[in-house]
Amino acid sequence: MNNEMLIRITRYYRALNKLRTIGLEKVFAHNLADAAGVSAAIVRKDFSQLNIYGQKRGGYDIVELSDVIGKILGKGEPENVIVVGCGRIGMALMHYSGFENDGINILAGFDNNPGVVSSNSSLIPILPISKLDEFALQNKISAAIITVPEAAAQDTYSHILECNIKGVLNFSPVTLKPMPTADGKLPVVHNINIGLELEQLFYEIKFPKEQSPNS
Amino acid sequence: MNNEMLIRITRYYRALNKLRTIGLEKVFAHNLADAAGVSAAIVRKDFSQLNIYGQKRGGYDIVELSDVIGKILGKGEPENVIVVGCGRIGMALMHYSGFENDGINILAGFDNNPGVVSSNSSLIPILPISKLDEFALQNKISAAIITVPEAAAQDTYSHILECNIKGVLNFSPVTLKPMPTADGKLPVVHNINIGLELEQLFYEIKFPKEQSPNS
Repeated sequence: MNNEMLIRITRYYRALNKLRTIGLEKVFAHNLADAAGVSAAIVRKDFSQLNIYGQKRGGYDIVELSDVIGKILGKGEPENVIVVGCGRIGMALMHYSGFENDGINILAGFDNNPGVVSSNSSLIPILPISKLDEFALQNKISAAIITVPEAAAQDTYSHILECNIKGVLNFSPVTLKPMPTADGKLPVVHNINIGLELEQLFYEIKFPKEQSPNS
Repeated sequence: MNNEMLIRITRYYRALNKLRTIGLEKVFAHNLADAAGVSAAIVRKDFSQLNIYGQKRGGYDIVELSDVIGKILGKGEPENVIVVGCGRIGMALMHYSGFENDGINILAGFDNNPGVVSSNSSLIPILPISKLDEFALQNKISAAIITVPEAAAQDTYSHILECNIKGVLNFSPVTLKPMPTADGKLPVVHNINIGLELEQLFYEIKFPKEQSPNS
């Protein structure tokens, strides 16, 4: 499955779970299309590629469909993640309660500033960086969010990989590259560079692409 | 220029400006490759597509190259943007000083909570939402960052488009779709959905793709 399809499937899954919560039983391709920002034809094409078929004119059974897609996405127990760097962005993520709906728990934050560690007002513990290795091992942490300042990003990244963490969501403006860990495998690295996103936005405002209703 | 190339070119441009700041004069394709997280061959290919050529064995002149790429990216005066929704994420963005290096100024924040508006401790003004139209018009704002709660996202988006704003960076978990404005044009919409990013990260950790050093 390519990245774009994965994003769509994840969006269908999220929409299904919301519909399930409010007690709906059936869903149509165009409902999921609206939720994912694509056309109904794309939803049907994705489902046919995944061998998912609805009842003729009856739509899809929400519980059934959500279970099938959940299995495809490897959903099961909630996933645990840690936040390294408890500045404003890190703290905002730790206080955001919306990840729980996506099956994701932020278990702890880490910071090397003793003031931040002791003044913690969030429900999630903030620990000194020196506890990172032990915590990650004990809690079998497989993913970390990096929200440290630019200058600390590369060292933090190396440190995290030494803790057997396999995935990184990086908010620092440094582009981190996957680099082989001790076991020779490459970690998964996603970089979210907000400055770069803004620059691209202004570029596209200035030089509009051929207009198409889906982006 | 496709999206991926635009991201690379923007990364080269940022790296060039940093090198320029520290007084370097020449740069080689492999330096830019490191900064952008790609191979030197890709840098050379991008440059040849843009008709940019270095001196044989001498590398590229940093000032010249940065000017050429700046022109391609439409760089000039700093770009102004506003933040709508001054919760934790919105405030974190307003306090982040790194965007200035990218030629981007956050001019103001907007919130419908009078407490947030009056308790403002940031250097950037926070105004009530009722001032949005007037402010956007007076300051010729072309882009906005949406950091309102999920339930308010769609209404905020419609409101912003009525203010003749042409680009939106959306942090709310709702997928906003480009929809035609009064002049019949489609705005540019970038959705940054952190929960979705985390879900994808866990998916890729569970189901590793064929390993490649660049992602």
